Amino acid sequence: MARKIIIDTDPGIDDAMAIFFAFQAPELEVLGLTTTFGNVSVELATQNAITLTEIAKVDVPVASGVVVPRVIAPLPHPDFVHGKDGFGNIDWPAPKGKAIDKSAAQFIVDTVREFPGEVTIVALGPLGNLAAALELDPDLAGLVDEVVLMGGTAIEYGNVSPVAEANIMNDPHAADLVFTAPWQVTMIGLDVTHQVLLDNSVLERIRTANPAEGEFLYQCSQYYIDFYSSRFDMDGCYFHDASTIAYVMDPSIFGVELGAVRVACEGIGIGQTIFAPQGMDFPSPNWVDVPMTQVCMEVDSDKLLKLFETTMS
Amino acid sequence: MARKIIIDTDPGIDDAMAIFFAFQAPELEVLGLTTTFGNVSVELATQNAITLTEIAKVDVPVASGVVVPRVIAPLPHPDFVHGKDGFGNIDWPAPKGKAIDKSAAQFIVDTVREFPGEVTIVALGPLGNLAAALELDPDLAGLVDEVVLMGGTAIEYGNVSPVAEANIMNDPHAADLVFTAPWQVTMIGLDVTHQVLLDNSVLERIRTANPAEGEFLYQCSQYYIDFYSSRFDMDGCYFHDASTIAYVMDPSIFGVELGAVRVACEGIGIGQTIFAPQGMDFPSPNWVDVPMTQVCMEVDSDKLLKLFETTMS
Repeated sequence: MARKIIIDTDPGIDDAMAIFFAFQAPELEVLGLTTTFGNVSVELATQNAITLTEIAKVDVPVASGVVVPRVIAPLPHPDFVHGKDGFGNIDWPAPKGKAIDKSAAQFIVDTVREFPGEVTIVALGPLGNLAAALELDPDLAGLVDEVVLMGGTAIEYGNVSPVAEANIMNDPHAADLVFTAPWQVTMIGLDVTHQVLLDNSVLERIRTANPAEGEFLYQCSQYYIDFYSSRFDMDGCYFHDASTIAYVMDPSIFGVELGAVRVACEGIGIGQTIFAPQGMDFPSPNWVDVPMTQVCMEVDSDKLLKLFETTMS
Repeated sequence: MARKIIIDTDPGIDDAMAIFFAFQAPELEVLGLTTTFGNVSVELATQNAITLTEIAKVDVPVASGVVVPRVIAPLPHPDFVHGKDGFGNIDWPAPKGKAIDKSAAQFIVDTVREFPGEVTIVALGPLGNLAAALELDPDLAGLVDEVVLMGGTAIEYGNVSPVAEANIMNDPHAADLVFTAPWQVTMIGLDVTHQVLLDNSVLERIRTANPAEGEFLYQCSQYYIDFYSSRFDMDGCYFHDASTIAYVMDPSIFGVELGAVRVACEGIGIGQTIFAPQGMDFPSPNWVDVPMTQVCMEVDSDKLLKLFETTMS
């Protein structure tokens, strides 16, 4: 039986990779996309999510979500990474479809209630919709199968501060709620996503095998690869968001460590996912009774990229 | 020519090791001890510092310093590590001497002004005296040879929170001033001190060779070793503070990395020394123009312990 997922997303180029990957995976049933500000505004994220469903000819609902962070002032959208359009400035035509008439948080609650215990939420952006859903339905956490999120970093350096990753930095208060709620969270952060490099040769082969999604991904990714190759002297790009889909399809690709994760919400460490490995005790109420997050620390990069290529082809 | 040092200290069992180590080292000239709250109250720290000069029969001034942290509420003294007396509850008689009639900060300023460019400050506790000295004399930083401090952690887990080390946690605002002032700071934190294990066999040999200091250190250390062996299943204790003296005598024992260090002053990450390696850029004014700290990341433990034993014998 296919695993039911909702993808919470701010497309975004690596979001597009993740969403097409999930659409193509027979192991997964995508129940809907929910959108958030992050790589782009939420309005554009919603439009982009609909575009992706239309390119893939997949009929799933798209629900629009949070517009700004819960507490902090909004940060600028990183158009130097994803382009002003979120798709690498490729000037793709606007989609025909519309978002459903329900908020992202309400869609999450209703869908989880429809399939109690069966739904995994895959979160690719800032975590405001998940936090809003937890508030909307105090019993939600116990009804969700798993939350698999791209964000944070345990021991690797951050990408927007020495200790913070961008998705978490964009809404640290929402993230702290998500990490401390009583559901199983699996964190796929920079500890593993910085170990997976996607290069053009893979994208070219996918384009040949799958002209619709493949061509679109190839076009978007050139801007994204330019960013990484000029800034970090890399021959390719990181595969951040799409790693979550590989995890949901085959967790054995990853090595996980259990520990408490809490998010710094103020000061120069703001946005940091502070990781306290299981069994390490500290004399502070901050670290008592925090649920254990599964933090991905290792990844079989070859196996992950092969799964992506095979699924997409 | 011997290297001139001032030791800022909160004795403390490993402080006692460091101070005797420095007194015995012909490579070093200890110009004075300044005291702070930390392992014990500042009153007791001052008394204990004087006790150490009397046991070692070394005539150096002791100047009493800050009583509480700059901003945060004082944390409890860790009597489960150092005993109520700071010396492992050995009931040592009170010293005869007195502190000089000058604050720690004023003593630091006056001594550095007396030997401009020649004085290294070795800091073994919370950093309030160094911060106060910087405020007292805005030109101080440029006149100090080096600040070598035991505190913080760059990539190793903390000892009072998942990310914070005790000395820095005790006064994070003072520490941030010290790490951002324009002097050369060398940080000897848990990254290296957790790699050096002192066991009783070394202390027994020192006791035989040097009955005055050796007997005292052996007696103090039993409580300290009990703490570590019961809590962490270790056969010995960490050598935190005394590592600074080894560094000042022979920096080649350590491997250092350069980077900006700033201290988290609020939230659940409070007390963390956030490390941004040289060459890593982040889009935040917090990380612009921060002086480069030398952060010790590697240590030759055998060589360090041999230097301690040889010097003490």
